[in-house]
Amino acid sequence: MGVQYDGSGFFGWQSQRHARNVQDVLNHAISRVADEPIFTAVAGRTDAGVHACGQVVHFDSGAVRSLRSWLLGINSNLPEDVAVQWVREVPAEFHARYSAHSRTYRYVLLIREVRAPLERHRAWCRRGALDRDAMAAAATHLLGEHDFSAFRGAGCQARSPVRCLHSLEVTRWHDSLHVVVRANGFLYHMVRNIVGALVRVGAGDEPPDWTAFLLASRDRRLGAPTAPPEGLYLAEVGYPPEFGLPPAVMSWGSPA
Amino acid sequence: MGVQYDGSGFFGWQSQRHARNVQDVLNHAISRVADEPIFTAVAGRTDAGVHACGQVVHFDSGAVRSLRSWLLGINSNLPEDVAVQWVREVPAEFHARYSAHSRTYRYVLLIREVRAPLERHRAWCRRGALDRDAMAAAATHLLGEHDFSAFRGAGCQARSPVRCLHSLEVTRWHDSLHVVVRANGFLYHMVRNIVGALVRVGAGDEPPDWTAFLLASRDRRLGAPTAPPEGLYLAEVGYPPEFGLPPAVMSWGSPA
Repeated sequence: MGVQYDGSGFFGWQSQRHARNVQDVLNHAISRVADEPIFTAVAGRTDAGVHACGQVVHFDSGAVRSLRSWLLGINSNLPEDVAVQWVREVPAEFHARYSAHSRTYRYVLLIREVRAPLERHRAWCRRGALDRDAMAAAATHLLGEHDFSAFRGAGCQARSPVRCLHSLEVTRWHDSLHVVVRANGFLYHMVRNIVGALVRVGAGDEPPDWTAFLLASRDRRLGAPTAPPEGLYLAEVGYPPEFGLPPAVMSWGSPA
Repeated sequence: MGVQYDGSGFFGWQSQRHARNVQDVLNHAISRVADEPIFTAVAGRTDAGVHACGQVVHFDSGAVRSLRSWLLGINSNLPEDVAVQWVREVPAEFHARYSAHSRTYRYVLLIREVRAPLERHRAWCRRGALDRDAMAAAATHLLGEHDFSAFRGAGCQARSPVRCLHSLEVTRWHDSLHVVVRANGFLYHMVRNIVGALVRVGAGDEPPDWTAFLLASRDRRLGAPTAPPEGLYLAEVGYPPEFGLPPAVMSWGSPA
């Protein structure tokens, strides 16, 4: 299933007691339709406040329902800040997490002298110009396979700090900057730590090759503060084409 | 002052007891900075759930503060869903409502087969294709000065149902449609009733000249249901250039 959610009302994806999370809400809704307890596996565990347009989850069930019944039934059992976008039957060997060969995140920065209430849960709103070209130059140093320890958040449980960055693009759109990053996978807080570093370069506080220095240091303590969660969107998860999954549905409702 | 707010947490602009509204919140914040009771006048009273990017309000005060002190002081006393965007001193003859010669509203429609949680408070999300060209053709019949009784909501307190529509444009942007309408003023629910009629035409349920028939009927009961508030934004208020007010700041943070 493809899932979209507004992360601002959740303490992240992961199931946990005493804190509203996407996984429990989704498990509950699917279980109602399946008429049996359902436990979902997810492509990308998102943190508190982080959104998803193209999250992918899978579950096993013996229940027989049409795809349309799954879609409508689950959505009618979900709160308004989560919705299933599509449903497919997949072969038993498919796994939302382990079959994925790439994840794409989008980070939205809004450059404003005054805070923007309409965007407060949807973008990192900050003052002061950012040099897009410097940020794009800084981004190139991170492409390819590297030890990303310098961008790894405390508490990261991954066995290896090595990831392969397929692309990292910085584009300007009116008074916003979009950082779009695709990799085989990400360490804890890795996207937000990369964005934090790019912003420091964009603000002129460090030169573009500072990211090369940071990467080589493998020392998180030298890096920039973690960018806040509200600007981050899990945009798309890539799978081998034989699974025939549909592309993620982007959100294009704005500009307001 | 220019004011932006997310209308989803307010029962509209208008001051009222027992219901959170923008006016009371703003009066309170300004009064704290002015150190005296302040009562604001507004360019366009928005309904519950309706947003504003370019709302304009004025107030009288004997307090002497720099423009920057007003801006920062008021914003630090406002909740996160409202923020002053700019502050100017104006001549005594300026009135936010009576000096305005035009109001521009934007209505955002999102065409989706499945609901979109990230846009739920920001657009009217609906299923089924809409014919933009038919909607644009229907719009032309409403241009100019007319009796808009057929688009007037029950409970409207305006003395005259005559308004002059300066422009009414329908543009497609990815999977969204934007209806932008400018007039000297609007009757109660007028924009949302116009959007409701245009959507009926766009869906193929009525021909484009149905809006001409509706307008001539002056009968609200013949029209389409009122479009919901979450897609509506007060985008800009026009004043004579001698007041030197800055243009409205649009929201361009998305697409996510």
